[in-house]
Amino acid sequence: MAVGTSSGIPSTPLLKDEVDIVIPTIRNLDFLEMWRPFFQPYHLIIVQDGDPRKTITVPDGFDYELYNRNDINRILGPKAACISFNDSACRSFGYLVSKKKYVFTVDDDCFVAKDPSGKEINALEQHIKNLLSPSTPFFFNTLYDPYREGADFVRGYPFSLREGVPTAVSHGLWLNIPDYDAPTQLVKPHERNTRQEYVDAVMTVPKGALFPMSGMNLAFNRELIGPAMYFGLMGDGQPIRRYDDMWAGWCVKVICDHLGLGVKTGLPYIWHSKASNPLVNLKKEYHGIHWQEEVIPFFQVVSLPKKCTTPQECYIELSKQVKEKLGNVDAYFNKLADAMVTWIEAWDELNPSEKLSNVSAV
Amino acid sequence: MAVGTSSGIPSTPLLKDEVDIVIPTIRNLDFLEMWRPFFQPYHLIIVQDGDPRKTITVPDGFDYELYNRNDINRILGPKAACISFNDSACRSFGYLVSKKKYVFTVDDDCFVAKDPSGKEINALEQHIKNLLSPSTPFFFNTLYDPYREGADFVRGYPFSLREGVPTAVSHGLWLNIPDYDAPTQLVKPHERNTRQEYVDAVMTVPKGALFPMSGMNLAFNRELIGPAMYFGLMGDGQPIRRYDDMWAGWCVKVICDHLGLGVKTGLPYIWHSKASNPLVNLKKEYHGIHWQEEVIPFFQVVSLPKKCTTPQECYIELSKQVKEKLGNVDAYFNKLADAMVTWIEAWDELNPSEKLSNVSAV
Repeated sequence: MAVGTSSGIPSTPLLKDEVDIVIPTIRNLDFLEMWRPFFQPYHLIIVQDGDPRKTITVPDGFDYELYNRNDINRILGPKAACISFNDSACRSFGYLVSKKKYVFTVDDDCFVAKDPSGKEINALEQHIKNLLSPSTPFFFNTLYDPYREGADFVRGYPFSLREGVPTAVSHGLWLNIPDYDAPTQLVKPHERNTRQEYVDAVMTVPKGALFPMSGMNLAFNRELIGPAMYFGLMGDGQPIRRYDDMWAGWCVKVICDHLGLGVKTGLPYIWHSKASNPLVNLKKEYHGIHWQEEVIPFFQVVSLPKKCTTPQECYIELSKQVKEKLGNVDAYFNKLADAMVTWIEAWDELNPSEKLSNVSAV
Repeated sequence: MAVGTSSGIPSTPLLKDEVDIVIPTIRNLDFLEMWRPFFQPYHLIIVQDGDPRKTITVPDGFDYELYNRNDINRILGPKAACISFNDSACRSFGYLVSKKKYVFTVDDDCFVAKDPSGKEINALEQHIKNLLSPSTPFFFNTLYDPYREGADFVRGYPFSLREGVPTAVSHGLWLNIPDYDAPTQLVKPHERNTRQEYVDAVMTVPKGALFPMSGMNLAFNRELIGPAMYFGLMGDGQPIRRYDDMWAGWCVKVICDHLGLGVKTGLPYIWHSKASNPLVNLKKEYHGIHWQEEVIPFFQVVSLPKKCTTPQECYIELSKQVKEKLGNVDAYFNKLADAMVTWIEAWDELNPSEKLSNVSAV
């Protein structure tokens, strides 16, 4: 584990000591240069994927800790089996070792986007704003986020619901290369999300609705939902990839719905630089595309018992139902269900104090 | 009933012979001058509210029919009791007498808005586009309407759901004066929805989520959902106002969810010119603000039996449940439930052929 130091901190970054930035990578982190004005005040957790003998360089001036596979194995022992290898799902490890209230995770092919006026977007600041303002999952507001400046609840919005609920997740979007699956990439190789497609909105994903959560530009309240933010078993030795964030999103959403927590999506945008190879992706996604047609209906009707009042309890219960209801889709889901349990054991081992602080179910 | 004629029709207006524009009013329709380039090719149904002896003038060149209270009483006989008087809820009558597939209804204090580039927005054209493209109520798409040019379904969106479902409702928004309730108007008298707040998006309201449907700028597929688009009993002789569109929205949404139909909201914007008096509104809304806290939970859990496969059947079933579950909130809901039945009787009387064409429940 390597450690860097910080310097040249800009004035008043939001929640400087309460946010970790988690970055999974296999390469030198030159992409941080563009983020320097926004990220330098914060602490980075870099999860190095692939060959641990490779040295990854981090630009000077960033405050970071870096974990490679040897570190993961050393820290987790046999439980390291729940952390994916050769897949960006390894980022989950960063959530485990973070000690902060909030996590922002971003891919190393994501750069600073510009809003339609040409101004650089401070994605982290917008995520923090999203996480610090409530969500409204129980009733749809037609003017989008009612807590945003210049907006409010419209006529007909029940007053009893206007306090909202705590926001657990802030899901950001992408300009340039949209986050499409391989078949859509193949059909529309040249489609780009330009500044014309910039949508200046943040909104709550309503209770009961599932959404495709991309892990490219994502922030969450680790205290409220961290234990459910497991990116699953992908990559080496697994029959599936590119569904790590989707899996986490389905689990997180049903648990947020159960615990009365909110999920926001929309702003901020980042600039996604690189379209991955659609033919390679097709192979990675093949089982996921097939399985999701059974997995999503499972998540659409899954129900958690009232007695589950913490994300840990919800997640363990969910793992049981995964085994029971999806085990017959493919043996992979039995392995995944076991890994979900291991993940919670690892979480509790590394975060012993959290077991005391419970969130009440709604 | 007065009839006008059309002239000077612009080239290729969308679905010219399949749309009626329904306008409730108590005044001369000078506001149509600004809409002339967009509305003139279409047929207008004007529902004159208040004193039927008053003559309302319509600018030259519009093709219209105009109904005052005497016309309504003559056409519906005793069933006219279900049509509100001295309230814009009277617009429902226009939906009854329309013979078109689509209806666009707009208030007479709504004008043509401009998009952020300064271009005048053809609201009707955008509504028609919304109604002609499918909706996606079963899974949330983070890039908003996937059928819009430049957008698509994102990674993780189930392929089996990408055909979508027919869109029954297109709910448009407002620049300038937002559609706030009286308490919010009182608290924020100067808040305006400026072009900075313009959100360039259309989206499906997910299945299971209720929304506050404003009747100011609204279009719908009359064949699919017309019989449920009843704006209730408001105005003279009733204890409540300004909940006509909200009532319709709650009913429409649960019936769309049951029948597997979609509701879209977002674009187009109109320019809403006039903030109504918040103190007057407070009196009109008083019971609604109070009652909605019991009415909305009712709609959130209401369930329609499988055997209801047409909007009429759904609506009659809903009227029974309103009487059973809301009758104890206030006697008004018994009266409203009876009016819902009268409305369907009136609908079937004026639209006898429709009873043959059924929509299948999902």
